[in-house]
Amino acid sequence: MYKHTISPGFSDTDALGHINNTKLPIWFLEARNELFKIFTPDLDPKKWRLILAKIEVEYVGELFYGHDVTIHTYVSRIGSASFTVYQEAWQQDKLAAKGQAVMVHFNFAEKQSEPLPDAIRMQLAQHAPESSP
Amino acid sequence: MYKHTISPGFSDTDALGHINNTKLPIWFLEARNELFKIFTPDLDPKKWRLILAKIEVEYVGELFYGHDVTIHTYVSRIGSASFTVYQEAWQQDKLAAKGQAVMVHFNFAEKQSEPLPDAIRMQLAQHAPESSP
Amino acid sequence: MYKHTISPGFSDTDALGHINNTKLPIWFLEARNELFKIFTPDLDPKKWRLILAKIEVEYVGELFYGHDVTIHTYVSRIGSASFTVYQEAWQQDKLAAKGQAVMVHFNFAEKQSEPLPDAIRMQLAQHAPESSP
Amino acid sequence: MYKHTISPGFSDTDALGHINNTKLPIWFLEARNELFKIFTPDLDPKKWRLILAKIEVEYVGELFYGHDVTIHTYVSRIGSASFTVYQEAWQQDKLAAKGQAVMVHFNFAEKQSEPLPDAIRMQLAQHAPESSP
Repeated sequence: MYKHTISPGFSDTDALGHINNTKLPIWFLEARNELFKIFTPDLDPKKWRLILAKIEVEYVGELFYGHDVTIHTYVSRIGSASFTVYQEAWQQDKLAAKGQAVMVHFNFAEKQSEPLPDAIRMQLAQHAPESSP
Repeated sequence: MYKHTISPGFSDTDALGHINNTKLPIWFLEARNELFKIFTPDLDPKKWRLILAKIEVEYVGELFYGHDVTIHTYVSRIGSASFTVYQEAWQQDKLAAKGQAVMVHFNFAEKQSEPLPDAIRMQLAQHAPESSP
Repeated sequence: MYKHTISPGFSDTDALGHINNTKLPIWFLEARNELFKIFTPDLDPKKWRLILAKIEVEYVGELFYGHDVTIHTYVSRIGSASFTVYQEAWQQDKLAAKGQAVMVHFNFAEKQSEPLPDAIRMQLAQHAPESSP
Repeated sequence: MYKHTISPGFSDTDALGHINNTKLPIWFLEARNELFKIFTPDLDPKKWRLILAKIEVEYVGELFYGHDVTIHTYVSRIGSASFTVYQEAWQQDKLAAKGQAVMVHFNFAEKQSEPLPDAIRMQLAQHAPESSP
């Protein structure tokens, strides 16, 4: 499990007084940075090997400006050429949002998906929900 | 069905050269403006009556800078106190993304959900997929 | 003068109830799309020829969710290798923000600025404040 | 001087391969959080006492995805009812952007600016460029 901390800015709020719902996909993407390093260690966009097939976000509570938000990131499914990331957003010990993202291992030159190599599968497996501290 | 047109800006692109995936939830939200007027005709945030329970976005193609994007917005399900919005993002006659958003009719003063009034149900029903031109 | 219309989305608001100040640089950039076509007619990022040296935004009034915002874009200065864009954001006949952006004509392969060709200078000059309708 | 660290996300990049210029005003705003606490210690938007009159950003270098960005925040001018914030964005020991923001001490109930109280002036003065470590 990866932990990533966000300090919400005033521009993350909306007129209802809390964090706007569109910030969650942005924060969840930002929190996947460490996972992306498994595929592209120097995070050079020219060597990118992943595309996003689908996201899902469930809003279970409000998030507020003025307190840090911690994103927990797990790998919940490892398929042949794709995997699913499960993420949670916590603030002051309350779960506020849960997300899933389906990522496909992709060869941009060939414009097609590619099986996940074993070395990568092993690294992804270390972030499975059950094996996380 | 509502149609809403977006002119992507340069800040909507990412280092892979196309529109970043996090823009879709933002554009889908923006395209729900007309739907929000059914609940709050003057769009005054102080009279807001909806909360977002869940979103889903499926990325089926790329979107590019330099061409308008049209968002189609339908009401695909009307429940007792909630409804589901189905949306599509089209660019140059190609479908690039499909989204769903579950909205709950909410009383912010009482902090609880409320049944959808019949007058509102009728208006929502006019945007069902089958009844759209 | 170019005119570009924005329909603010709920995610453009902030907890003070109006449009957040960080949206203005984004909207002003989006409204420069037409100007960018003078340099890169098909807006292909791979053929980009401009970099941004400086922006300035003066906030003279509030902008609200629920009403369209119109951005007026002028070319206020044409230098040897750079030019300045002057922009205004209007809502319901009130001026809400004024911006300037200094753009440099840039050769990305050579990594250096280049004089503005005469053909481009002439096109830019058509958008000078005095020559606009 | 305040230091605030940002981990750029993929959505902060643009099609030129680096961080998009519109992210700087957002990051500079986010880095002013600590300064805002001088005025509103619990950062409750309902007790907000500041409005933004003007921003300026000078882009002196590129910022890239894959490395943290540190924002340095100073108070460069203290006027009677307003003050100016000077900010710098650094990445891998290189200065990439410099910004200024003019903030006005504002009474939202009375809808007018108010002199900066002495207690606040003293706290702001501790972040003057010369007095920073």
